[in-house]
Amino acid sequence: MKTTVLILNGPNLNLLGEREPEIYGRETLADVEKKLRSVFPDVDLTMRQSNAEGELINWIQEARKTCRGIVLNAGALTHYSYALRDAIEAIDIPVVEVHISNIYAREEFRHHSVLAPVCIGQITGFGTGSYELGVRAILNYLQKKKPIK
Amino acid sequence: MKTTVLILNGPNLNLLGEREPEIYGRETLADVEKKLRSVFPDVDLTMRQSNAEGELINWIQEARKTCRGIVLNAGALTHYSYALRDAIEAIDIPVVEVHISNIYAREEFRHHSVLAPVCIGQITGFGTGSYELGVRAILNYLQKKKPIK
Amino acid sequence: MKTTVLILNGPNLNLLGEREPEIYGRETLADVEKKLRSVFPDVDLTMRQSNAEGELINWIQEARKTCRGIVLNAGALTHYSYALRDAIEAIDIPVVEVHISNIYAREEFRHHSVLAPVCIGQITGFGTGSYELGVRAILNYLQKKKPIK
Amino acid sequence: MKTTVLILNGPNLNLLGEREPEIYGRETLADVEKKLRSVFPDVDLTMRQSNAEGELINWIQEARKTCRGIVLNAGALTHYSYALRDAIEAIDIPVVEVHISNIYAREEFRHHSVLAPVCIGQITGFGTGSYELGVRAILNYLQKKKPIK
Amino acid sequence: MKTTVLILNGPNLNLLGEREPEIYGRETLADVEKKLRSVFPDVDLTMRQSNAEGELINWIQEARKTCRGIVLNAGALTHYSYALRDAIEAIDIPVVEVHISNIYAREEFRHHSVLAPVCIGQITGFGTGSYELGVRAILNYLQKKKPIK
Amino acid sequence: MKTTVLILNGPNLNLLGEREPEIYGRETLADVEKKLRSVFPDVDLTMRQSNAEGELINWIQEARKTCRGIVLNAGALTHYSYALRDAIEAIDIPVVEVHISNIYAREEFRHHSVLAPVCIGQITGFGTGSYELGVRAILNYLQKKKPIK
Amino acid sequence: MKTTVLILNGPNLNLLGEREPEIYGRETLADVEKKLRSVFPDVDLTMRQSNAEGELINWIQEARKTCRGIVLNAGALTHYSYALRDAIEAIDIPVVEVHISNIYAREEFRHHSVLAPVCIGQITGFGTGSYELGVRAILNYLQKKKPIK
Amino acid sequence: MKTTVLILNGPNLNLLGEREPEIYGRETLADVEKKLRSVFPDVDLTMRQSNAEGELINWIQEARKTCRGIVLNAGALTHYSYALRDAIEAIDIPVVEVHISNIYAREEFRHHSVLAPVCIGQITGFGTGSYELGVRAILNYLQKKKPIK
Amino acid sequence: MKTTVLILNGPNLNLLGEREPEIYGRETLADVEKKLRSVFPDVDLTMRQSNAEGELINWIQEARKTCRGIVLNAGALTHYSYALRDAIEAIDIPVVEVHISNIYAREEFRHHSVLAPVCIGQITGFGTGSYELGVRAILNYLQKKKPIK
Amino acid sequence: MKTTVLILNGPNLNLLGEREPEIYGRETLADVEKKLRSVFPDVDLTMRQSNAEGELINWIQEARKTCRGIVLNAGALTHYSYALRDAIEAIDIPVVEVHISNIYAREEFRHHSVLAPVCIGQITGFGTGSYELGVRAILNYLQKKKPIK
Amino acid sequence: MKTTVLILNGPNLNLLGEREPEIYGRETLADVEKKLRSVFPDVDLTMRQSNAEGELINWIQEARKTCRGIVLNAGALTHYSYALRDAIEAIDIPVVEVHISNIYAREEFRHHSVLAPVCIGQITGFGTGSYELGVRAILNYLQKKKPIK
Amino acid sequence: MKTTVLILNGPNLNLLGEREPEIYGRETLADVEKKLRSVFPDVDLTMRQSNAEGELINWIQEARKTCRGIVLNAGALTHYSYALRDAIEAIDIPVVEVHISNIYAREEFRHHSVLAPVCIGQITGFGTGSYELGVRAILNYLQKKKPIK
Repeated sequence: MKTTVLILNGPNLNLLGEREPEIYGRETLADVEKKLRSVFPDVDLTMRQSNAEGELINWIQEARKTCRGIVLNAGALTHYSYALRDAIEAIDIPVVEVHISNIYAREEFRHHSVLAPVCIGQITGFGTGSYELGVRAILNYLQKKKPIK
Repeated sequence: MKTTVLILNGPNLNLLGEREPEIYGRETLADVEKKLRSVFPDVDLTMRQSNAEGELINWIQEARKTCRGIVLNAGALTHYSYALRDAIEAIDIPVVEVHISNIYAREEFRHHSVLAPVCIGQITGFGTGSYELGVRAILNYLQKKKPIK
Repeated sequence: MKTTVLILNGPNLNLLGEREPEIYGRETLADVEKKLRSVFPDVDLTMRQSNAEGELINWIQEARKTCRGIVLNAGALTHYSYALRDAIEAIDIPVVEVHISNIYAREEFRHHSVLAPVCIGQITGFGTGSYELGVRAILNYLQKKKPIK
Repeated sequence: MKTTVLILNGPNLNLLGEREPEIYGRETLADVEKKLRSVFPDVDLTMRQSNAEGELINWIQEARKTCRGIVLNAGALTHYSYALRDAIEAIDIPVVEVHISNIYAREEFRHHSVLAPVCIGQITGFGTGSYELGVRAILNYLQKKKPIK
Repeated sequence: MKTTVLILNGPNLNLLGEREPEIYGRETLADVEKKLRSVFPDVDLTMRQSNAEGELINWIQEARKTCRGIVLNAGALTHYSYALRDAIEAIDIPVVEVHISNIYAREEFRHHSVLAPVCIGQITGFGTGSYELGVRAILNYLQKKKPIK
Repeated sequence: MKTTVLILNGPNLNLLGEREPEIYGRETLADVEKKLRSVFPDVDLTMRQSNAEGELINWIQEARKTCRGIVLNAGALTHYSYALRDAIEAIDIPVVEVHISNIYAREEFRHHSVLAPVCIGQITGFGTGSYELGVRAILNYLQKKKPIK
Repeated sequence: MKTTVLILNGPNLNLLGEREPEIYGRETLADVEKKLRSVFPDVDLTMRQSNAEGELINWIQEARKTCRGIVLNAGALTHYSYALRDAIEAIDIPVVEVHISNIYAREEFRHHSVLAPVCIGQITGFGTGSYELGVRAILNYLQKKKPIK
Repeated sequence: MKTTVLILNGPNLNLLGEREPEIYGRETLADVEKKLRSVFPDVDLTMRQSNAEGELINWIQEARKTCRGIVLNAGALTHYSYALRDAIEAIDIPVVEVHISNIYAREEFRHHSVLAPVCIGQITGFGTGSYELGVRAILNYLQKKKPIK
Repeated sequence: MKTTVLILNGPNLNLLGEREPEIYGRETLADVEKKLRSVFPDVDLTMRQSNAEGELINWIQEARKTCRGIVLNAGALTHYSYALRDAIEAIDIPVVEVHISNIYAREEFRHHSVLAPVCIGQITGFGTGSYELGVRAILNYLQKKKPIK
Repeated sequence: MKTTVLILNGPNLNLLGEREPEIYGRETLADVEKKLRSVFPDVDLTMRQSNAEGELINWIQEARKTCRGIVLNAGALTHYSYALRDAIEAIDIPVVEVHISNIYAREEFRHHSVLAPVCIGQITGFGTGSYELGVRAILNYLQKKKPIK
Repeated sequence: MKTTVLILNGPNLNLLGEREPEIYGRETLADVEKKLRSVFPDVDLTMRQSNAEGELINWIQEARKTCRGIVLNAGALTHYSYALRDAIEAIDIPVVEVHISNIYAREEFRHHSVLAPVCIGQITGFGTGSYELGVRAILNYLQKKKPIK
Repeated sequence: MKTTVLILNGPNLNLLGEREPEIYGRETLADVEKKLRSVFPDVDLTMRQSNAEGELINWIQEARKTCRGIVLNAGALTHYSYALRDAIEAIDIPVVEVHISNIYAREEFRHHSVLAPVCIGQITGFGTGSYELGVRAILNYLQKKKPIK
């Protein structure tokens, strides 16, 4: 049976590939999804995106029953959504925080993640490649079944 | 020809595998090195460790002529060594910052990295698996040859 | 005629009773509702929960026409939702802020409530018993009809 | 052809005219809309309001294809919604931030706008007249087609 | 046998009922005591007040042998008396922090309680009714005998 | 009789049109004055500029007897001149704070105005068009004669 | 009938005249009292000193019935005793804060008085002469009977 | 020979008596001067006022040759004029800082004086009576000729 | 003649040996006293404890005439009692600050001592052994009679 | 043709040589000017001083047409005059910031210069020799004509 | 067999006895070592000093196999060397932090030790006597074998 | 006999001339040394560079016996090396801090030097010309032999 992993995207990531392509490249979320499926043929990947904090929380809560792990790019919610943080903390499956850009090389407000302390780890700065590294991190984690602290 | 990658380790990482094995596991740096070599047979990996900031800077400077990228776990220097930061900024090859533990889930002083803004990205929290993800990130980066910002 | 009181719950409180039962106990929101109805047979209690800030604001606005008071456990929104605060400030009925756990004995970010200054009072730390105390506080307030400042 | 301008309103602004009329006056959003249409007969004005951050982001994203500019009163989201900020930054049309009251003469938390740096400008304190000045600012901007920095 | 509960009051609370009656009402501490006795006929209530931090600490220490719980209104000592905090932490009986006014709606310095983290909970803003809610909270706590954290 | 409005300019604004024309355009203060006169033929406009805080205060004090309102671009004094603030607070006529550039998109120190709390409102970011919007705001204000807070 | 004024002294002021006489002079509190009596023959002066915050609060509370005003040198309690502040705020007679030394020219922690906002004024830096100026300030205040704010 | 004392006033104090008379009273600076002359017939008093920091500094520098002391009400410059501070520090005659209102009971920015550390003392909150107390303080100081620290 | 040393203990230290014995051990203050007497037979030791700041100040003041040195464990007063600090500064005999636990490994508020700058030194973390080290430090100091700075 | 350099001095520097000669020496500004002329015979030096911020700004603005560079000792204005900063930023000629004393070894407020970021460099601590080094720095800069950043 | 204790000294302590002897005395590290040997004849003492952080870390790591405890005077590294802290935390033997001077009576930056939380205790201010007290503390600790927290 | 001056360079300055030549120019440290020798033929110049803090401290300590002064460019250590600061403070010869770039126009962390307070002065922003100005400053200082404060 395939391992089910949710790739969850927050506000404005639906514009990926369209907005500032000279920086972010021309890949859309759909392209990323396709590529991830080809790289991880044995993983049952679901990609979702929402601009609404509440909907993201709903999906995280649902995932606790249907998925083995979550790769989460929460967009700007990363920096203030303590509600998202509580959702992550409330579920038992591992969540990996990913960012396309290097958030530490950008505006001051992006240097602090309120989610990081309750995720198993964070991957930031590797373009859409961050998603791939995130899925790998989930798979490694599930193999070891031993939380790292 | 093999791609040359330096795996650079800062203060106290020589104690890996020996110190608090129930948390960090029993792998030593040598074990990590061996594992990385088997995962990346086509990469020419060099692993180095020093407790001295000056020596780490020397090695980073040398690497600019001999390596294609650096995976750097600077240990506690991560949080205050602006001299290390300047060394990273001064060279043209990509540096990926890695951490074994999730630094955002530990003491306050570990939440801030002075190196992150000048690295291409950061990977934190995946145990010694962070090194493997780091090497992959370097290889991806070299393939695309396009800096992500 | 019965006094109508809204018991409003924010993000992740739908997981109550299921998440970390050794700390929060095994009572669900439905159990709390049932208990409150038995303790306050003369009060017309409505219990609602949402993970979405916008929906909570809608309900608070509606309550100003249909309820005599609100007992509000806003979950993590307590700490940053100035929009929720504005909704509370905009209506004329009393709102009592409640928390199941003692927020002052937890993470730093939970020590500050942006809602407290516009509620009539705050009750924190008494488990699901905080809801019962909250309803009592509303009833006392309505009897005196004199705001305390 | 008429210039299309979106007048976008955030949380609790649906209560305008009803809440504290001695301060805000008795004009509702509908009144404001009517007045704006009469002042700017050659502009195709759409007025929208939502209490949900996610819906506001959706509308801003849609507007990038259908409107020439946005006059935005984000209510209390002004002070913490980095997701809204990202939406504004992601689109190419000009956004003017407006406020009915003088936010700098009110509570401390209202003195800081996270949206201002990515809007073309800010107008605050002129009652519902701020909307009118905001539309004018958009029209002037579109005439000059030269960003001011 | 009756449950013994100490109602402990700090500096200036002896002036209750006399000072600013238009705000605090005309009830004195003696009135509050009388009312509490009538509401809780089965509780052995002792009400004490002192303007001296040292005396309050003495009484808290004594209470650990003679009482089942304490309802504490520490007045302005709430905001800086770490010595009082240590006394509360040193004893095994539950302490509930109460305030007559909503301290979060007053001067900045009143927004922070150094006692809250070591009390089982806090009740603030319900006039002299806060005492009644405080006694109830103690009784509930003693029934469950399970600390809430 | 014409409405008298003072357009008051602080330090370095005498260089307008000459300094960095690619950013600020080539309009001088004299050009702005001419344009304002043509847009508002029924207003008696006086434009003044000084590099000296004391002289600006003198002019504000005089204006309380001779003008109906002031449009004030205080330049860098905006950020620290509490003396200017006191002058504005001491007079009964409305003052509108304007800025040519978007001060919230520039250096940190420009994000805070010590004048804003005592002006009726602030307009920032619309080039020299900010002056025009400022005069309109004064005129609207005088028509309503009702302070907005 | 003589005006009754209380001269109240806090911790360590009983050592006046004995401690560091090269700085504070050789006058004791008794000397100060004698001098004040000779300067103000028509005032009924009482001088008191205590090292205990609780006792000072008791005396302030008593004074509200027996005195027309208080000159208060609270010593180091000036900088943290919010309980003293509440006592001053609770009584209707004027309190003048005095300090022998210039507290603004000493250690950082002495630059902030928690009492000043609730006293009618502050006199600092004039040696024991500060007491004399303080009594004068009280007498002037009582003559005008008009609070200054 | 008479003692020469300069009474120096900063920005906006020329409006005294005219501005907000219900708070500050109807006395003008001229009235204050007249009253001071009658109270201190043996002192040669000069009263000056300027809205310009530079002029105030010039007068302070001149006073070092012509006066025995200065009573200084620097208005809002009190809170930021380090240049004024340097002028005070550069001269050998005593300067007493006075304020009509209690600056510690007003806006936050008025709680800090950059001048206080280099004045011999500060008198605040006694209406125009602060000037009289200030002159007395100077005279006492000159009699003792011993700086208090 | 024996050297007289005062061992002074602040709030809650009377509970020593009784409170959390698994951490602090079962030694009471009386046990500590007995042990110190046996270790230092030639020293005239007096051990005192009070929960009242004022009483501790009284004892410190008295000690200046009767003792050669003080070993002070001020309990939680360490962190805010500037009045205690002034008492220490006012006397000529050496004071050594001691703590049973390592205050730097506990809650944030315990990391700062307001007393340390005016004591000759600080000893923290060695259990009740800190008292013994403290007495030794006093004796060494008295032998050398040369203050260390 | 001689290179024209303006030596500009801010508040209180007219007292140089007179004030605290044991620290600053007995050289007046006139002495410094004479010495600079003898050291740099080929430079057309103008020395100016004013206590008024506005006048200093006027002179800086004029200098952009008549001088090749400015050596600026802004006195205490260094620490808060953003208006001076704007003037420096508005002109194209190089400005070197100089200070006689080592501002980093003095009061906290002198450690921060608001001018430094817009000057080409800063020289501090070399007595009146700082002026000479400043002129040299201007001359070197003009020779290279290449801004250093 | 003798107990082995390492006395470890950080940067600039090699200058002891030579630098500012009027403050620190004329004892060199060698003198301290000699004295310690005579006071503790049964302890095998090794004294080391280095100006290099890396070398100090090396020695701490080695000591975990060869010593029973460490007395550490880390000099200025105390205030920022998190790498040293990690080394201390990584070893199982007790480390006592000592300082010759009272670091809390010196510059602000010396008031905070990053090492203290991971040492068993801290001794500061007793001249070279601090080393002696440090060795004693180690010996006591080893006897009890029970960590104090 | 020639005056001996040490030119000391910290981390990464060995890359000078090679790294970012469009900004820093193509001069290497060797070039700078050569130029300095030609400009100051009567000075015995030694230029040294190290990436290791410990080595820099060793050299500073040695210099106190062999040199008359030090020109120090400590690179990024400027911003955190309190150990370097102690070394400078411990020696009697003058140290001048120099920087090639204008550190106040760069990243926030470069705006604060922990060395400046113990150097005689600071020169920043004049390219490699800063070294020349630094040597001159040392020579002037040695001629006057009078420390400037």
